[in-house]
Amino acid sequence: MALIVQKYGGTSVANPERIRNVAKRVARYKAMGHQVVVVVSAMSGETNRLIALAKEIMPEPDPRELDVMVSTGEQVTIGMTALALMELGIKAKSYTGTQVKILTDDAFTKARILSIDEANIKRDLNDGYVVVVAGFQGADANGNITTLGRGGSDTTGVALAAALKADECQIYTDVDGVYTTDPRIVPEARRLDKITFEEMLELASQGSKVLQIRSVEFAGKYKVKLRVLSSFEDEGDGTLITFEENEGNNMEDPIISGIAFNRDEAKITVLGVPDKPGIAYQILGPVAEANIDVDMIIQNTGADGTTDFTFTVHKNEMNKALSILRDKVQPHIHAREINGDDKIAKVSVVGVGMRSHVGVASKMFRTLAEEGINIQMISTSEIKIAVVIEEKYMELAVRVLHKAFELEEA
Amino acid sequence: MALIVQKYGGTSVANPERIRNVAKRVARYKAMGHQVVVVVSAMSGETNRLIALAKEIMPEPDPRELDVMVSTGEQVTIGMTALALMELGIKAKSYTGTQVKILTDDAFTKARILSIDEANIKRDLNDGYVVVVAGFQGADANGNITTLGRGGSDTTGVALAAALKADECQIYTDVDGVYTTDPRIVPEARRLDKITFEEMLELASQGSKVLQIRSVEFAGKYKVKLRVLSSFEDEGDGTLITFEENEGNNMEDPIISGIAFNRDEAKITVLGVPDKPGIAYQILGPVAEANIDVDMIIQNTGADGTTDFTFTVHKNEMNKALSILRDKVQPHIHAREINGDDKIAKVSVVGVGMRSHVGVASKMFRTLAEEGINIQMISTSEIKIAVVIEEKYMELAVRVLHKAFELEEA
Repeated sequence: MALIVQKYGGTSVANPERIRNVAKRVARYKAMGHQVVVVVSAMSGETNRLIALAKEIMPEPDPRELDVMVSTGEQVTIGMTALALMELGIKAKSYTGTQVKILTDDAFTKARILSIDEANIKRDLNDGYVVVVAGFQGADANGNITTLGRGGSDTTGVALAAALKADECQIYTDVDGVYTTDPRIVPEARRLDKITFEEMLELASQGSKVLQIRSVEFAGKYKVKLRVLSSFEDEGDGTLITFEENEGNNMEDPIISGIAFNRDEAKITVLGVPDKPGIAYQILGPVAEANIDVDMIIQNTGADGTTDFTFTVHKNEMNKALSILRDKVQPHIHAREINGDDKIAKVSVVGVGMRSHVGVASKMFRTLAEEGINIQMISTSEIKIAVVIEEKYMELAVRVLHKAFELEEA
Repeated sequence: MALIVQKYGGTSVANPERIRNVAKRVARYKAMGHQVVVVVSAMSGETNRLIALAKEIMPEPDPRELDVMVSTGEQVTIGMTALALMELGIKAKSYTGTQVKILTDDAFTKARILSIDEANIKRDLNDGYVVVVAGFQGADANGNITTLGRGGSDTTGVALAAALKADECQIYTDVDGVYTTDPRIVPEARRLDKITFEEMLELASQGSKVLQIRSVEFAGKYKVKLRVLSSFEDEGDGTLITFEENEGNNMEDPIISGIAFNRDEAKITVLGVPDKPGIAYQILGPVAEANIDVDMIIQNTGADGTTDFTFTVHKNEMNKALSILRDKVQPHIHAREINGDDKIAKVSVVGVGMRSHVGVASKMFRTLAEEGINIQMISTSEIKIAVVIEEKYMELAVRVLHKAFELEEA
């Protein structure tokens, strides 16, 4: 008997028919003698519908009230999923984030989980219930409803698996595993049987929309065994995320495991800042205080004693970041110009193999140059190289890089 | 400065435009220096949509999970209403039933309020906030989400007004007050400036859908000043519900204040029961235990030592009540026959004036007889006479009674 946490995304619970299929799979695991906790997202489209409703009232909705509204999406799904299980004769009980309780900080719309009270869930599991938990949401210390931000249901799943010391956290999605890149863009993309935690982290953070980055971090931190599977197929073992270097990094393994991409970011450039110590903090401090996540950061010092500072944020937050810079930062730093550009995309080559292989960067840059694609920003880590390019070239870049690194071959 | 609770029903918050109108009215009261608590229902149609979604999964949905789903309707509206107020520059904060907390019993889908913790709301009001509370919902002692049943938002409004010792509870709806009967059926129906609590109770319980009965009981119990107004008109004082006999029962007042009707009930007949003491309890006890509300009850003893027993329940619960009777009651009481009929309607003549005037009943029965309408059940109280008739005659009965009692004249 194992304790398994299964997380189902929006497309897996998109309608009553699919929710019935989720219930059937849970029933099979229950019949094998396992204890099952189910984490569900909102039905696909529902979160966007609720956000649109809020924006119809207030173009930039107050985040506390937005969370009150948006969190109803998962609340409807947990009720439906519990009903579908009962209809199969299985004892089931739903929990909202507040009811669990999943304690978060008070950063509305992007809260972080502080702790999970697992006592009630444990009791229900031992009483034979399947417990259905709303993903993506929690409550702060004052009982305010919070949401974890887009994709936060994965984080809920992994955090619950960690709190309950589950044997495995299964992430069900509309793909049957992690691919070398998005098969919608490159039909030759290949499913990986396993992938290291670090590669997964890079692939997720770079926008391989299979798993949300925070959930992978969580899984690594608490050594949660994580598996990505398709909710539309009953066969197949999906992709296992491994945490041991040796498990996933054999001599035979390819150098590069995948190509990630992301068109959700916007670039902000602060030009002609006096080149003095502390300037990075002066620029990014107020942005961070406003709870805006910054991804890539690049600083270039020019010849004239000034420096250019470029960073990327989520597209939705570009205008907020720009007005913070113009209102609060510009009066102090006297930059020549502050610009935003949301017509960009980020493309990354990811793989633990590149640690021991030179020439990955040069191959990447040459491949892009041959297609006439200009590189605007470059950022590197031990296991990835990311570039920012014009958005319209994104799909072309992914395709040519996938081919150049021979990812279609096992 | 007064403390006013304003309750807005589903049609008053049916879309963003109407929610903006609600915010504008609240803003006017705030500008006059009043403290305002706003109670809102789900957007019209939303509760039915959620119930349909649940029934698509499970034809008779588990009530706990149904409440989890249905309560999201009001949760969306409180967020939107708070946003609309903020958009007008007014400080606003939303509360779900759980957050208030509105403590109820655990009778899911028809819970009763046990207590209201008013401390946080008082603090927010004193800090200058307009507080927006989800109607119709609460939480039981274990933190399970409950709903108060259809129309329960009125009850939330009145209960909050009582707990906060508000100066007035204003119920905004799609009519501008309480009428002698539904103007959609009788165009000559007249708005009443005031009505006694008892008459209102009868009118509401008989289905004059303006106010939910429990809210009127609550208002009477806690002497909450209750006013029914239109949310679509800025002028007009609506109808005041009075609690003093003298206020509403002058010599000049008409004998009858209105004609109520209700097509939500079904009739259950238990025929040929041995006429022994305790038979009523044997029949109704199991029905009440299943939390099914019974309205009219009639027992007639026949000549053959058996008795016929008839009662009415909500249409939605007729099948549940019938199966309880057939499974649990029939084996003990040996009734000859148990029948259900949901093609009935109840029509009532209501007025405190009938206490001191004879002949109301005979006038009512004669009027119906002249139209060839057969009476199936009769039930009387000091201030009302109710009859059950075939559903198809309901509108005709209401029209001829309205005319017979000259209700179109002030």
